[in-house]
Amino acid sequence: MKKLINKPEDVLADALKGVAAAHPELRVDHQHRVIYRAEPKADGKVALISGGGSGHEPLHGGFVGPGMLDAACCGEVFTSPTPDQMVGATTVVDRGAGVLHIVKNYTGDVMNFEMAGELVADSGVRVETIVTDDDVAVEDSTWTAGRRGVGVTVLLEKIVGAAAEEGQDLDAVLALSRRVNGQGRSMGMALTSCTVPAAGKPTFELPEDQMEMGVGIHGEPGRHRVPIAGAAEIAERLVEPVLADLQFGGSPGIVMLSGLGGTPLLELYLLFGEVAPLLEKAGVQVVRSLVGNYITSLDMAGASLTVLKADDELVRLWDAPVRTAGLRWGV
Amino acid sequence: MKKLINKPEDVLADALKGVAAAHPELRVDHQHRVIYRAEPKADGKVALISGGGSGHEPLHGGFVGPGMLDAACCGEVFTSPTPDQMVGATTVVDRGAGVLHIVKNYTGDVMNFEMAGELVADSGVRVETIVTDDDVAVEDSTWTAGRRGVGVTVLLEKIVGAAAEEGQDLDAVLALSRRVNGQGRSMGMALTSCTVPAAGKPTFELPEDQMEMGVGIHGEPGRHRVPIAGAAEIAERLVEPVLADLQFGGSPGIVMLSGLGGTPLLELYLLFGEVAPLLEKAGVQVVRSLVGNYITSLDMAGASLTVLKADDELVRLWDAPVRTAGLRWGV
Repeated sequence: MKKLINKPEDVLADALKGVAAAHPELRVDHQHRVIYRAEPKADGKVALISGGGSGHEPLHGGFVGPGMLDAACCGEVFTSPTPDQMVGATTVVDRGAGVLHIVKNYTGDVMNFEMAGELVADSGVRVETIVTDDDVAVEDSTWTAGRRGVGVTVLLEKIVGAAAEEGQDLDAVLALSRRVNGQGRSMGMALTSCTVPAAGKPTFELPEDQMEMGVGIHGEPGRHRVPIAGAAEIAERLVEPVLADLQFGGSPGIVMLSGLGGTPLLELYLLFGEVAPLLEKAGVQVVRSLVGNYITSLDMAGASLTVLKADDELVRLWDAPVRTAGLRWGV
Repeated sequence: MKKLINKPEDVLADALKGVAAAHPELRVDHQHRVIYRAEPKADGKVALISGGGSGHEPLHGGFVGPGMLDAACCGEVFTSPTPDQMVGATTVVDRGAGVLHIVKNYTGDVMNFEMAGELVADSGVRVETIVTDDDVAVEDSTWTAGRRGVGVTVLLEKIVGAAAEEGQDLDAVLALSRRVNGQGRSMGMALTSCTVPAAGKPTFELPEDQMEMGVGIHGEPGRHRVPIAGAAEIAERLVEPVLADLQFGGSPGIVMLSGLGGTPLLELYLLFGEVAPLLEKAGVQVVRSLVGNYITSLDMAGASLTVLKADDELVRLWDAPVRTAGLRWGV
């Protein structure tokens, strides 16, 4: 295993030291492994918390800051954070206007956030939860009942974060989060496995002449293994199931093509050059896009496509200022 | 070879289609493979051009935009762009105040930019050139006489770009670029080779238990191969030669830890968590930092450290607004 780490069991703790050193605008609670905004809180703002296993960086810690999350709970690599992390974070960030928990649909995350919500309810903090489930690849998977939550989580954190920042209340923020999740679809593919530090070897074996379509962000199996193909064909295999799952025609689309951690930007742009015309041809107007590493799977080579059916309001919230390590504009 | 590409010979042309699709704020001249800002030019601004082989993304195309470059000339993967690309770009971006060519010290790039400068001189455009050479790893290398130009190029494009944007003239911009290059030092290391698409196999072989210290951004050999070590020791081996090469003590430092393309952000933060305290201990105040993929080597796993000895003026220019695909803040 070739990685820039010390001991496998210290990966998260060590990485959080680096986050703290690189980002004075964040406050890292090393004991509880929670990343907060450092600046004083505005009263009356709905707070947004997300979290999940580490290994998907910049998700979620890289999306903490004005215009997105108030806090991110960091689990060990590919492991859910614990309810006490979530309870602590929720209590700290509440400004009296309630807290939205943004949870990717994985069994451990859903269960732990649910438990945290119940624990916090006793203390009078109002908590609502959105569970994202945008991955069209499989209906159930290794670690989920129902579809997996993947790329739409990034877009949701941005859009709903903007709504919270401009003062929308918890009901409005919750409704918006449901709308975004309902209108977003994703599909991923892998050229290689990832290697979890604690395991020390690739999660799965993928022969040199094959790729995995519909792979999950932890290396869970996808739809099928197929012979490796060129970018044009890969683009079709990503776009087709996304378009087949939701009526996008004629709508503006916010599109993200995220690398999985081991794929260089040159290849991501190349693939986006194939994806964008396919979407346009199908009537999706690509009005905003992100190409880069936004939701990753450690060192996996591959990419995931997320398309959000947008409208003027969603685009306005997308364009609102954001200042995080992973996304920044307008400030 | 597992890559998100079509034909190896079309990688650059195909990737530029994706850049154009993703960035309406850029204008891509597909015929000449030059990326420009799309917005109208301000008169009297010194123009900044850079360029080089592709495969180092986001360098340089990702740094075109307000506050950084006016144009980037894109060569084939790891191959210098041609003089005619540079002449075309220089002529297009000149606003009567002259043009600065920012060139990484590699034989092909230096020769071609020199030729372009001579060709353009006849047409009355004033061109000055800064050749960056910040890599402390080796004094001469496979493709250079003198030190290689690497990470400081990113910091220079940002800082000098800000100076040009605020109206400094060509003499001032050139002097500033020399100062930045002279005060910046870099050192890189690789865990794996990269694979050039046209070659179809790794540039070099690196056994599972070894790493290459001082590797170049094209996979050129570095100082030595050593047994693979933990992040703490790798940090020492990056920091030590940088500090040994320039007296940093007591100065503020702008620090970049760049991935080489195949290393996930989690590991980069982890390594930065080791690097930052070593720098602080040596008297470098880490006042600004970048952790992520900024100057890469295709899919190589590894990282490079760049430290710039700064002062209030350089920090002020660093903080000035920038709006590019690769760096964005303040707007």
